[in-house]
Amino acid sequence: MSSPLRLGIAGLGTVGIGVVKIVQKHADLLAKRTGRPVEITAVTARDRLKNRDADLSAYRWEDDAMAVATADDVDLYIELIGGEDGIAKDSIEAALRAGKDVVTANKALLAVHGQELAELAESLGRVIRFEAAVAGGIPVIKAMTESLAGNQIQRVMGVMNGTCNYILTRMESAGLPYEAVFEEARQLGYLEADPTLDVGGIDASHKLAILSSIAFGTKVNFGAVEIEGIERISIDDIRRAADMGYRIKLLGVSQMTARGLEQRMSPCLVPDDSPLGQLVGGTNMVVVEGDQVGQIVLRGAGAGEGPTASAIMSDIVEIARDVRMPVFGQPADQLTEAQTARTAVPAAYYIRLELQDKPGALAKVAAILGEAGISIDRMRQYGHHDDNSVPVLVVTHKTTPDAIDHAIETLPKTGVLVSDPVELRIEEV
Amino acid sequence: MSSPLRLGIAGLGTVGIGVVKIVQKHADLLAKRTGRPVEITAVTARDRLKNRDADLSAYRWEDDAMAVATADDVDLYIELIGGEDGIAKDSIEAALRAGKDVVTANKALLAVHGQELAELAESLGRVIRFEAAVAGGIPVIKAMTESLAGNQIQRVMGVMNGTCNYILTRMESAGLPYEAVFEEARQLGYLEADPTLDVGGIDASHKLAILSSIAFGTKVNFGAVEIEGIERISIDDIRRAADMGYRIKLLGVSQMTARGLEQRMSPCLVPDDSPLGQLVGGTNMVVVEGDQVGQIVLRGAGAGEGPTASAIMSDIVEIARDVRMPVFGQPADQLTEAQTARTAVPAAYYIRLELQDKPGALAKVAAILGEAGISIDRMRQYGHHDDNSVPVLVVTHKTTPDAIDHAIETLPKTGVLVSDPVELRIEEV
Ligand SMILES: NC(=O)c1ccc[n+]([C@@H]2O[C@H](COP(=O)([O-])OP(=O)(O)OC[C@H]3O[C@@H](n4cnc5c(N)ncnc54)[C@H](OP(=O)(O)O)[C@@H]3O)[C@@H](O)[C@H]2O)c1
Ligand SMILES: NC(=O)c1ccc[n+]([C@@H]2O[C@H](COP(=O)([O-])OP(=O)(O)OC[C@H]3O[C@@H](n4cnc5c(N)ncnc54)[C@H](OP(=O)(O)O)[C@@H]3O)[C@@H](O)[C@H]2O)c1
Repeated sequence: MSSPLRLGIAGLGTVGIGVVKIVQKHADLLAKRTGRPVEITAVTARDRLKNRDADLSAYRWEDDAMAVATADDVDLYIELIGGEDGIAKDSIEAALRAGKDVVTANKALLAVHGQELAELAESLGRVIRFEAAVAGGIPVIKAMTESLAGNQIQRVMGVMNGTCNYILTRMESAGLPYEAVFEEARQLGYLEADPTLDVGGIDASHKLAILSSIAFGTKVNFGAVEIEGIERISIDDIRRAADMGYRIKLLGVSQMTARGLEQRMSPCLVPDDSPLGQLVGGTNMVVVEGDQVGQIVLRGAGAGEGPTASAIMSDIVEIARDVRMPVFGQPADQLTEAQTARTAVPAAYYIRLELQDKPGALAKVAAILGEAGISIDRMRQYGHHDDNSVPVLVVTHKTTPDAIDHAIETLPKTGVLVSDPVELRIEEV
Repeated sequence: MSSPLRLGIAGLGTVGIGVVKIVQKHADLLAKRTGRPVEITAVTARDRLKNRDADLSAYRWEDDAMAVATADDVDLYIELIGGEDGIAKDSIEAALRAGKDVVTANKALLAVHGQELAELAESLGRVIRFEAAVAGGIPVIKAMTESLAGNQIQRVMGVMNGTCNYILTRMESAGLPYEAVFEEARQLGYLEADPTLDVGGIDASHKLAILSSIAFGTKVNFGAVEIEGIERISIDDIRRAADMGYRIKLLGVSQMTARGLEQRMSPCLVPDDSPLGQLVGGTNMVVVEGDQVGQIVLRGAGAGEGPTASAIMSDIVEIARDVRMPVFGQPADQLTEAQTARTAVPAAYYIRLELQDKPGALAKVAAILGEAGISIDRMRQYGHHDDNSVPVLVVTHKTTPDAIDHAIETLPKTGVLVSDPVELRIEEV
């Protein structure tokens, strides 16, 4: 048996403690599977006195992450603190410079500084792995960098924020408005300290930006993601969409087009009987389309102690087996700067309107859509509300985002709308 | 850039030609992703003059597989001939002895001789990879050997024969009997030369045996799989199961229990709204359950030129990157001999009976079930058939296979059955 792989862990929260537990529980399994013992030598967190759900007495406590990152008896530095800057980044850089490999679950950091860190690691002959950063326990990083390496990737899609998916499915099942379920989620501890990271789509966009880089061999570009959160999704839309056979999901889509790389994160309609439509609660799903393999669907828990630590362990095992790969699947200095494209791939759209209950209102709407070059696939008019407004739903044939934007801008000018029109993309899945 | 990886390919059928095409089409991509050129030097098949869907003129033609396997200018031998014995096995052994690594898609060979081949490869410091052997384009071998390496695997399940799934879903959608759809499948070229490999569940069992070995660290033991094919599935059962909210799938399940390793391949009922229940046509699905990660679901094309060649390419890329792993994820000489257990894990069962239309018939049935200790969850009696027999469906609560076997044996002795009872396990998914 070879020499042990010695881990230094910074961050002993949900994920860090999960990793400690697996290293303790599955020591034999890990040694068998890697051919060497996997040991923890040093750990750190903010508060040494905090009561944690694992026995840490066998490990040296360091007072800061930099000490763990650079300790002589650490081979592999595991950053589980979080944050796109600060100590997480500093300690990873210090670890690389001290000749350590790095494993992290920090999607914010990689989405913002991934290129810079990859270049640093590769110039030093070091490895950074981050399976846990995207979709928790689902092995999507490995699938894309390794399993689909013989494919030109065509599109990557995913539901990658469990909290948003929990909120949307709970709104539907309980018939509750957004605000009520948001409050529930907060009380259940499902929301980040800054909830816009979740419901604003930022966390999911961090993940999408990372996947785009691997899929298309481009420098990670979080700033280029068109982001829209789920805050404006009403229980009305969820119900109407269901009427038409759809579910609303916060869906990330990344797609290379002739005009450049489209990356968007937005609430979309997907068929309720599709794998994405069937996804409930905190489960994540990633769909990858390659020119050879067709469509691959991966599903599993996107967060939580066990699943996230499982992903960290897969990275640790790879490093224990001395598997060494460029950070984003090909050398960082060969990744290209993608042309950023605003979404232009045509799609069907869902439009919800509240019309005044008077003759000719619907005709005016139809005229505007016609002038914008939008043809209607299905239209449904509902009985009027108490305030005498009439809900009208339109599902369009495939059209361009530009045409939809134009129509949505023009529609209020007809003077027959009671409120602003709502429009949602129907993503083809 | 490092020296090229030189491939020798034996077998130029569906998969072999698929690999040739990818190597040609994606040469740049492969070089970027592996850091070295991937080239083909020698090829072979049975018939040199056969017209093939790729330009092979740049490669040396060898007259037999042994010559490709042992050629000086071949680093990696790719066996795509097939067959559990004979030239496939001989040439792989020769390649290993000649110092080559090996990639194969040959599940029959691995299911039967995998242990022996793994021991040979590892004693020689060589690698055998076989991502394509199980579930085509779905990266399940990699997921299990690498991504879930921090987990104690608890159960592996899969729908892994596209032809069987095609037949079962087509029977349901077209309302056709088994024989008619079997004939259709034969005409469409979906069936192996020996169709019992498909419909008899053997091909799927080869795959299950391989997954079991990786999941549980045991020597691959195809002979221990309890196998039942789909030949006895009637359109009646498909319809009745649908009535009760189920679909019938040829499902493989491998599970370690206190009594030993249960491996079974059989037609089962699964809820029609579960991921497995939703699977239509030739698509495959593998479900892996780990103690840390929970349930991971992988879905994609299980066969065909592009998907299978994509999986072969992932193995080639790994070897080009010099990733070296034990064949079954841990050293072959450490794999244990699993105790074989007949299925004893309790489950709910579906029982279909055709009763004589006379008073007291149902009471006799209920009495037998009661005596066997089987309690009934749901029972449905249908209007009588033309021959005056009365179809009765029973869904039991969880019970043991032994109790079911006993009841199925005893039921005909009541004298109230018009035909043999049909029983199918309802697998919990
Ligand atoms: N939770 C998940 O399901 C999940 C899933 C995927 C990815 N991730 C990522 O994994 C990382 C960790 O997440 P988590 O959920 O485990 O977070 P957490 O539960 O909040 O834990 C964070 C840990 O970092 C420690 N810490 C904070 N500031 C520190 C500092 N300056 N120096 C040293 N340690 C410091 C904290 O110490 P104290 O305990 O003393 O306060 C705590 O132990 C984040 O990047 C997150 O995005 C999490
Ligand atoms: N097809 C799939 O979707 C799929 C999926 C997963 C795994 N697999 C596995 O992949 C392997 C190949 O399958 P396939 O579908 O590509 O089979 P195939 O289309 O029947 O091709 C077999 C090839 O082997 C050649 N061959 C036969 N005997 C030979 C011999 N003695 N020496 C050299 N070449 C010989 C044949 O030559 P000729 O062309 O001259 O007749 C043919 O090119 C099998 O192990 C199969 O189980 C296939």
